[in-house]
Amino acid sequence: MSSEIKAAQVTWHEGSVTREERERLLKQRGCTVWFTGLSGSGKSTLAVALEQVLIQRGHAAYVLDGDNVRFGLNAGPKILVETRGYAESAAKRFGLGFTAEDREENIRRIGEVARLFADAGIFALTSFISPYRKDRDAARGIHEKNKGGAIPFIEVHMSTPIEVCEQRDPKGLYKQARAALAAGKGMGFTGVDDPYEPPAHPELTIDTGKTSTRDAVASLLAFLHQRGIVV
Amino acid sequence: MSSEIKAAQVTWHEGSVTREERERLLKQRGCTVWFTGLSGSGKSTLAVALEQVLIQRGHAAYVLDGDNVRFGLNAGPKILVETRGYAESAAKRFGLGFTAEDREENIRRIGEVARLFADAGIFALTSFISPYRKDRDAARGIHEKNKGGAIPFIEVHMSTPIEVCEQRDPKGLYKQARAALAAGKGMGFTGVDDPYEPPAHPELTIDTGKTSTRDAVASLLAFLHQRGIVV
Repeated sequence: MSSEIKAAQVTWHEGSVTREERERLLKQRGCTVWFTGLSGSGKSTLAVALEQVLIQRGHAAYVLDGDNVRFGLNAGPKILVETRGYAESAAKRFGLGFTAEDREENIRRIGEVARLFADAGIFALTSFISPYRKDRDAARGIHEKNKGGAIPFIEVHMSTPIEVCEQRDPKGLYKQARAALAAGKGMGFTGVDDPYEPPAHPELTIDTGKTSTRDAVASLLAFLHQRGIVV
Repeated sequence: MSSEIKAAQVTWHEGSVTREERERLLKQRGCTVWFTGLSGSGKSTLAVALEQVLIQRGHAAYVLDGDNVRFGLNAGPKILVETRGYAESAAKRFGLGFTAEDREENIRRIGEVARLFADAGIFALTSFISPYRKDRDAARGIHEKNKGGAIPFIEVHMSTPIEVCEQRDPKGLYKQARAALAAGKGMGFTGVDDPYEPPAHPELTIDTGKTSTRDAVASLLAFLHQRGIVV
């Protein structure tokens, strides 16, 4: 392929790609599916399963979770200093830890990144405890006020009871949090010694203590279909 | 469509979608095309034109630029406080201005977001002056060390001479910077009173003083084709 041949085939118009063009050409409409719930409530399992099913159907989808966001965009000082050769002062200022302010900023950045993905026509599936209503509502707000047009924001409340989550305890975090609390050193763990504020009006509520992953994914697909987001 | 019917059709495997699956199903390989150069060198024009051409060919692509990143993910204190009702202390700590440290963090976050897009199988096209070699090399580094496998990072040096850029001066910024400098109040504007460090080994070099947008897009496509990133 020579660039001469290609040059003749290159056509474009002034200005940015509009949302409509993007959706027509990609044959999909971007949106954010925001999973919120306690540790062990099934957010990640469901997000990953939904991602697979969407991709199998030819939709571009991507899970944003602790793995790819906390250790990158929102990396704490220690990680920044150790693995990136970052100045300690900048790492302290910009890296996010677990204070209330840091958690809020963590969710704010995730909301912004999800919005960018959805604006690009991608399904952004976010999997974070995101315990505070105010922070989730702010994420919803930036989707609704998106410059290129409002983006669907689908809040999925994982309502699995804490007893079930704590019994699963896949990372042993509840055990750790209970021990810390008993020793008088609370760690601010959601559901143990930090509150979880359930959504007032979630688009969907799923209790994985009662619903299988298969059924939950089917409900999500049905919902996206009903909203005209997947066809 | 009932969720019962759909449930039977839902299949997935344990764990995350692999890079290979994603690329096969989306029929494309993600990458980051990093445009760097002076204000007025043609970064944005070229990024937007390439985005359109890629999307026309059915590839998911997205331009990250000042418009959608600086006012969102990296918003400065003033914007955060005024439009988001953000606490002034948090806005001061997390919002980015124009000091050297802030600029570095700005580019670091953009590098992380571009990596997320590319990891999702999308073409991330970044359009930022990004004047410092160290910051661009760091962005390249996180692409090469990406957990799910190395991601192609294509650095495009917009080598348009400053005389040409300054003559274009689309936003009147050079005029402003020269006036500030003459008045003894430098504003640290790249090319005027702040250095631009050209890449040592860019994948491509384009001088839009000599090359038309059409030819430049054709060269970019030819390069992506040659690297097996677009077919």
